[in-house]
Amino acid sequence: MATTLKALPVSIIAHVLAVAGAVLVLVWCIHFRGGLAWEATNKSLIFNIHPVLMLIGFIILGGEAIMSYRGLPFKKETKKLIHLVLHGTALILGIIGIYTAFKFHNESNIANLYSLHSWIGLGVIIVYALQWIYGFVVFFYPGGAPWFRGESLPWHVLVGIIVFILAVLTAALGFLEKLTFLENSGLAKYGSEAFLVNFTAIVTVLFGVFVILAAMSRPIQVEDEYSYSSI
Amino acid sequence: MATTLKALPVSIIAHVLAVAGAVLVLVWCIHFRGGLAWEATNKSLIFNIHPVLMLIGFIILGGEAIMSYRGLPFKKETKKLIHLVLHGTALILGIIGIYTAFKFHNESNIANLYSLHSWIGLGVIIVYALQWIYGFVVFFYPGGAPWFRGESLPWHVLVGIIVFILAVLTAALGFLEKLTFLENSGLAKYGSEAFLVNFTAIVTVLFGVFVILAAMSRPIQVEDEYSYSSI
Repeated sequence: MATTLKALPVSIIAHVLAVAGAVLVLVWCIHFRGGLAWEATNKSLIFNIHPVLMLIGFIILGGEAIMSYRGLPFKKETKKLIHLVLHGTALILGIIGIYTAFKFHNESNIANLYSLHSWIGLGVIIVYALQWIYGFVVFFYPGGAPWFRGESLPWHVLVGIIVFILAVLTAALGFLEKLTFLENSGLAKYGSEAFLVNFTAIVTVLFGVFVILAAMSRPIQVEDEYSYSSI
Repeated sequence: MATTLKALPVSIIAHVLAVAGAVLVLVWCIHFRGGLAWEATNKSLIFNIHPVLMLIGFIILGGEAIMSYRGLPFKKETKKLIHLVLHGTALILGIIGIYTAFKFHNESNIANLYSLHSWIGLGVIIVYALQWIYGFVVFFYPGGAPWFRGESLPWHVLVGIIVFILAVLTAALGFLEKLTFLENSGLAKYGSEAFLVNFTAIVTVLFGVFVILAAMSRPIQVEDEYSYSSI
């Protein structure tokens, strides 16, 4: 399959979906939901940080980090640095985003960690963090022996792709859960906000699909130096 | 990646998860939700057919259909027949399962097709049906020219895996949506039914992960005859 898709067009579609998703989630949280705030008497403004950070910070930056290996025309060492910095930033923003959900719940007397969204999300962020630490130690500093890197890389790619798919699944669950709460509180099921949230979720899922396609595509290369063992 | 995983152990874990998921969804719909019925004054019994058919009929049979190509020690023509019959059965049970959701909504005066679950689910069943028809015509009867089968196969596999992932995502959305409705109507958030539904969803997601791993694993073969072009 890897040979039938070229990284560049697939990555471009993914970037366009990333921009669309970022704009949609900002329009939702700022225009429809009243904006973002770290401290507020209207606790919903604290919650609003959560979808913005999880989509733009965690999913989109994480997806760009995955694609950077295939879609950028740089040398391997440069791409590796971009890959780990983007994933590290995504992880930090993801942790802050999760913290805001707990902060919102605690300040609003809402129960924590009862929903499927929270359960899978917590699993995702833990595995993501372990995967980042493992990748840093084995592939960057101090770095494992070449044979060990070669053995580790397919698993690093596989776990990374599975965790990314589960992150996108968690985001879709989050959009559905929040919209269901809003609809139970009277929001119109066929209204513009409901459609906006559903479209944001669909754009997020499509972004996930194109990131996976990009990860399976033929990489853009400066030299023809790509192999598992040389990483 | 394909060479690092063996189909047999991965498939066995997937089968165990399939049995666990099937038992859990039946315990939920029969023990906790009062059972299944095609016609009933208690319309909830009509709804209950939906998760049972979508999980056991659509997702589990569909997953087994995907794995049958890698995990069974038969000749290619036998595996192809098993693959298309299982997928065809999954498709029919999936369509009946979706019909029961509409039937429940219509008889209970609940709006149709406003949620993310329904939108993505409808997309999944349509692509699944098109994929099945394409597979039947190109790979089974009347069958395309060898070069065309060779060109089509990687796309058939790719689209099949993406649609299966989206089907699992739709199932997770469905479990979360239904449980959120029930919790909004008073079901305990940390009660045994809520935990059962969340665990069923997690088992479903894990089944999806192991089906994908099985699809990426080294196939069990009678002869060493596996190649794209020979299918």
